[in-house]
Amino acid sequence: MELLTTNNVWMMICTALVFFMHLGFAFLEIGLTRQKNTINILFKNIFIITVGLLLYCLVGFNLMYPGEFNGFLGFAGFGLDSPLTDAGTLDLAYNEGYTYWTDFLFQGMFAATAATIVSGAVAERMKIGPFMVFTVLYVGIIYPLAGSWKWGGGFLDQMDTPFYDFAGSTLVHSVGGWAALVAVCLLGSRIGKFKDGKLQAIPGHNIPLATAGVIILWLGWFGFNGGSVLSADPGLTSLTLVTTCLAAAAGGVVAALVSTLRYKNLDLTMFLNGILGGLVGITAGADQMSPTDAIIIGAVAGAIIVFAVSLIDKLKLDDPVGAIAVHLVCGIWGTLAVGLFGALASVSQFLSQLIGVASYAAICIVSSFLIIFIMKKTVGIRVSEREELEGLDAHEHGMDAYPDFRLNEH
Amino acid sequence: MELLTTNNVWMMICTALVFFMHLGFAFLEIGLTRQKNTINILFKNIFIITVGLLLYCLVGFNLMYPGEFNGFLGFAGFGLDSPLTDAGTLDLAYNEGYTYWTDFLFQGMFAATAATIVSGAVAERMKIGPFMVFTVLYVGIIYPLAGSWKWGGGFLDQMDTPFYDFAGSTLVHSVGGWAALVAVCLLGSRIGKFKDGKLQAIPGHNIPLATAGVIILWLGWFGFNGGSVLSADPGLTSLTLVTTCLAAAAGGVVAALVSTLRYKNLDLTMFLNGILGGLVGITAGADQMSPTDAIIIGAVAGAIIVFAVSLIDKLKLDDPVGAIAVHLVCGIWGTLAVGLFGALASVSQFLSQLIGVASYAAICIVSSFLIIFIMKKTVGIRVSEREELEGLDAHEHGMDAYPDFRLNEH
Amino acid sequence: MELLTTNNVWMMICTALVFFMHLGFAFLEIGLTRQKNTINILFKNIFIITVGLLLYCLVGFNLMYPGEFNGFLGFAGFGLDSPLTDAGTLDLAYNEGYTYWTDFLFQGMFAATAATIVSGAVAERMKIGPFMVFTVLYVGIIYPLAGSWKWGGGFLDQMDTPFYDFAGSTLVHSVGGWAALVAVCLLGSRIGKFKDGKLQAIPGHNIPLATAGVIILWLGWFGFNGGSVLSADPGLTSLTLVTTCLAAAAGGVVAALVSTLRYKNLDLTMFLNGILGGLVGITAGADQMSPTDAIIIGAVAGAIIVFAVSLIDKLKLDDPVGAIAVHLVCGIWGTLAVGLFGALASVSQFLSQLIGVASYAAICIVSSFLIIFIMKKTVGIRVSEREELEGLDAHEHGMDAYPDFRLNEH
Repeated sequence: MELLTTNNVWMMICTALVFFMHLGFAFLEIGLTRQKNTINILFKNIFIITVGLLLYCLVGFNLMYPGEFNGFLGFAGFGLDSPLTDAGTLDLAYNEGYTYWTDFLFQGMFAATAATIVSGAVAERMKIGPFMVFTVLYVGIIYPLAGSWKWGGGFLDQMDTPFYDFAGSTLVHSVGGWAALVAVCLLGSRIGKFKDGKLQAIPGHNIPLATAGVIILWLGWFGFNGGSVLSADPGLTSLTLVTTCLAAAAGGVVAALVSTLRYKNLDLTMFLNGILGGLVGITAGADQMSPTDAIIIGAVAGAIIVFAVSLIDKLKLDDPVGAIAVHLVCGIWGTLAVGLFGALASVSQFLSQLIGVASYAAICIVSSFLIIFIMKKTVGIRVSEREELEGLDAHEHGMDAYPDFRLNEH
Repeated sequence: MELLTTNNVWMMICTALVFFMHLGFAFLEIGLTRQKNTINILFKNIFIITVGLLLYCLVGFNLMYPGEFNGFLGFAGFGLDSPLTDAGTLDLAYNEGYTYWTDFLFQGMFAATAATIVSGAVAERMKIGPFMVFTVLYVGIIYPLAGSWKWGGGFLDQMDTPFYDFAGSTLVHSVGGWAALVAVCLLGSRIGKFKDGKLQAIPGHNIPLATAGVIILWLGWFGFNGGSVLSADPGLTSLTLVTTCLAAAAGGVVAALVSTLRYKNLDLTMFLNGILGGLVGITAGADQMSPTDAIIIGAVAGAIIVFAVSLIDKLKLDDPVGAIAVHLVCGIWGTLAVGLFGALASVSQFLSQLIGVASYAAICIVSSFLIIFIMKKTVGIRVSEREELEGLDAHEHGMDAYPDFRLNEH
Repeated sequence: MELLTTNNVWMMICTALVFFMHLGFAFLEIGLTRQKNTINILFKNIFIITVGLLLYCLVGFNLMYPGEFNGFLGFAGFGLDSPLTDAGTLDLAYNEGYTYWTDFLFQGMFAATAATIVSGAVAERMKIGPFMVFTVLYVGIIYPLAGSWKWGGGFLDQMDTPFYDFAGSTLVHSVGGWAALVAVCLLGSRIGKFKDGKLQAIPGHNIPLATAGVIILWLGWFGFNGGSVLSADPGLTSLTLVTTCLAAAAGGVVAALVSTLRYKNLDLTMFLNGILGGLVGITAGADQMSPTDAIIIGAVAGAIIVFAVSLIDKLKLDDPVGAIAVHLVCGIWGTLAVGLFGALASVSQFLSQLIGVASYAAICIVSSFLIIFIMKKTVGIRVSEREELEGLDAHEHGMDAYPDFRLNEH
C-alpha cells in the first residue's frame, strides 16, 4: 500500500508534466511562425488537448489497451470502466504502479501529442476544419490502434525478440512525424517559402516563447520518460531522467556546433531543435542506456537534425517548425539505436526495431494519406491565397493575437 | 511514517502547483487587457501573493482553522505555532496526510486566489491603493472567516446534511466572484466599453500569454483539486485528477461549440473561459463524481459561460476577463451540482448546497460592498479619466511593460 | 525500500523544479534588457544548461564530491560511475534519500546556476565567445572545486564549528555573484548607462516575461531548498518550504515599501528583486529558521536590495538585472544570518560563516578575474561599439527575436 501510494504519486506528477508539454508545443509552434497565424495555432493546440482527452476517454483507452486481442485490432468498449473489488471500491490491485484512473490519464496525455506534432508541420496554411477532422480521427483511432500493437500487447510485443519502444520514439513521435510528412506533401509549401525554386527563410515571430517552449518540453520529458517506467522504481526512474537530460544536452550542443561550423552563425533555433532531437532520440531506450550511450545517441540526433532540416528544405518540403526532422527522423534514429546501444543491443533486436519502424510507417502513412487526401479532394485542406497572405487569425477567428502592437506585414 | 512521508510529498507538490497558478492568473489577466495597464496588473498579482501569504501567516490560518469554536467566528491567535511532541520536535502525528507546515502553506496558497479573481474584474480602471486595502481586508479576514464556516468545522459543516465543497467552487471561487460582482457594480465600466449603450469589444493585448495562463491554471488545478484530498490516497487523488481534466476538456469544447454556433467564428477566448468554467464547476465535487458526471458538469459549465458572458454584457457590467461568469456563475453551478450528481446526490444535499451558496453570498456581498463602498465615498476607487485613457502603468508606476515596441493608442 | 522510493521521488521532483529555474533566469534576463540582445541572452542560457550538464557529468560531479580528499582539491576521475551491488544492479544503499543517478542530476542542475547569474550581469555588451569560455571553466572547474570545500566534505565542513550553507546562499549564489562583480568591473558599463556621469535608466523590454521569470524562480526554489534536505523528511522539507516562501514574500513587500517611500512610485522591478533577495537570503539557513526568523531574514534582504542597487549605481557599476545586489549581497547576508538567527545562532557560528564567505570571495574573485582578465588582454571581451548599438542578435546570431513587430531603436 505504501509503495503503491508512492508509485501512484510519481505517476500523477508525470501525468501533470506531460500535460504541461502542451504549453511547450504551443509556445514552440507560435514562436517559430508568423504573428498573423498565432490565434489559429493556439486554437488548434487547445482543441487537441481537450478533444484528445475526451476521445481517449470515449474510445482511445480501450482501443489501445483492449486486453486479450488478435494483436492487430481490439476494442474493449466505449467509455471508461473502473475495476472494482468485491466491496465495490476501486480495485487498487489493478497494478502495483498506479490506479486505473492514473493509467487512463497518463496515457491520455500522451495521445494528444501525435496531433500536436502535425499541427506544427501544417501551420500557417491548413484550413482549421479539416485539421480538426484529422485530429479526431488520428488521435481518436489511429494513434491508439497503432499503439496497441506494442503497448497494448499486440503483435510487435509478441515477436520472439519483441520490438522495444520505452516511451514512444516510434509510438508517439514517429506516429506524429509520418502524418506530418504526408500532410506537408499534400498541402504544399507556404506562399513565398520557395521563390523561383530558392529557399526563403520565414523567421518565427517570437523567439523567447519558442525557447520557453523547448525548456517546457524538456521539463515535460521528465514525466514523459520518467513516467514510462510505470512505477517510481528508484533505480530505473532516476537513470531514465539522467539519460534523458544528457541526451537533450548532447543533442543541443552538437546541433549548435555542426550548424555553426556549416553556416558560421550561432543559430539558436538549431540549438533548440537539437535539444528536441536528442530528447526524441533517447525516448525509445531511455531506461536501457548508460550515460555514455545516452550522450552518443543524443549527439547523433543533434547532428541528424542539422542535415535532416537541410535535406527537407532541398526536397522543397515546408515544415515551419522542423517537426519532421525532430519527431520523425530522430524518432526512427532513437528506435534503431535500441538495437545498437545499451542493454538490449543485438542483431535480432535491431531487426525487430526495423520491423517496428516499418509497421508504424505503413499504418501512419496509409491512414494519414487517406484522411487528408479525401479531404483535399472534397472540402479542400488549404486556405485561400488571400487568407494565407492576410493570416488565418483574421479569417478563421476574427481576432488578433497582439492588437496593441504595431506589426510588419509579411 | 512511510505513508505520512508520501502523503506529505504529494501535498507539498500540490502546494507548489497552486502557487504556480498565480502566474496563470497574471498571464490571463494581462493577456485579456490592454498593454497600457500591464505593469499595474502584474504589480497587483505580485502584491496579492506576497501580502496574502504574510497575512495568512499572521491571522488567516488561525481564523480559518480556529479549532473548537462557535461555528461562525473563532480565532486561535496571531502568527504560526507548531505542534511539538514531548521531545520538542515537530509533532508528525498532527495529521496523517501532512505536517503542520504543509497544512499552513497549502491553505495559504489558496487564500490569495480570492483577491486575484477580483483583480481581473476591476482591471484597467481601479486605483491601486484601494485595491491593496481591499486585498488586505478580504484575503486577511473575510476569506478565512468565511472559510471557517465549512473547512474550519463551522456551522455549514455541522448541519445534518453538511454542506459539501471539496476544493472550493464556493469557498474560493464564489468568494472571489461575489466580490468581483460587487466591485464591478461600484466601479462602473471602462471608458469606451459601452458607447451609446452599445457594447464595444476591447480586445486583449497578448493572447499567447492569456492562453498560457489557462494552461498553467489547468496544471495548477492538479494541485488545487488533487491536494484537496488532503493525502495521497491513490484512488481518490487519481479519480480527482481524472474528473478535473475531463470537466476542463468538456467545458472548453462545449463553450467553443455553443459560441461557434451562436457567433459563427471560432472564438479562442470562449474556448479558454470554457475550460476555466469546467474547472471551477468540478471543483466542489471532484472527488465524488464519475468520469461521466464530470463530463456533464463540465459541459454544462461550458454552456453556462457563453450565456453568462452575454448576460453580464447585457447588464452593462464590464468584467474584462470574464471573472464573474467563470468564478461566480460556474462556482454556484458546481456547488449545486454536488446535490445533483455523484455519490452525494440527494434532495437534502441539494438544499444544503443552496444554504451554503446563500451563506457565502451574504457574507461576501455585504463585506465587499462595505469595504469598497466606504473607499468609494472617501478616497475614491476609480482612477481619473486621463489616467484611464493614458494607462495606469504610466501614472501609478512610471513604467512601461514593452518600451522597445511600437504600440497603438486605444 | 518504501522510504527510499518516496525520498527519491521527492528528490527527482526537486531536480525538475531546479531545472525549470533556467527558464526563470532566461525570462528575467531578457525581460530586464533590450530586445536587440534577446537572442544572445537566450543562446547563452541554453548553452549554460546544456554544456553545464555535460561538464558536470564529465568532471564536475567527481570534483565536487571526490570522497576522501585533502579538503581543498580532490578528483575522483572523469565521467560517471554507478555503485553496483554484488549482483550487478544499482546499489540502492548508496544513500537512503536518493539513488546515485538522482544525486548526480540534482547537483548537476545546481551547477549551471552560477554561470547564469553572471550572464545577467554582463548582458548586452559581452562577446559570446569569451562568455562561453568563461562558462566552461567556471561551471566545469571553479564551481565544483569551491563546492567541495563544504558540500564535498572539505575544510569548511571540517572546522570545529563547521561553516553552514544549507542550499547555497554562498556556494551557489555568491559564487555567481562574485564573478558577476568581477566581470562587470572588467567589462565596463553599457553605452549610455552613465551619461556625463549621470545614471540613465535603460528599461527592460518585456516586463511580463521578467515577472514570469521571478514567479518561475520562486517555484523552482521549492526544489532548490526543498531538495537540499536530501530526503523527503516531512518535518524538514515542509518547514523549508514555509521559510522559503515567507522570506520571499517578506523580501518583496519590504523592497516595494522601502522603494516606494524613497522614490514615490510603485516599482514593480524592485518588488521582484526583493522577492529574489528574500529567496537568496533564506537559502543558507532555510532548514534552521522559524517562520518569524524567515520573515525577518527576508525583510532585511528586501531592504538591502533597495540600498544595494542604489550603491552599485553610485559606484558606476552597470548590472542590467541587479544580479550583484540579489545574488552576492543577499547571498552574503543570508550566510551570515545563519550565525544570527535560528537553531545554529552563536558567535562561533557567525565567525565560521565569515570564514566561509571570505574563502569563497577569495577563490571566486581570483579565479574569475584571471579567466576574464586574460581574455580581455588577448581576444577581448567586449563587443564593438557598433555591435553594441545595433544589438548582439544581428551581429552574433543573424537573427531577430521579434521580426513581426515594429521596434524602437535605442
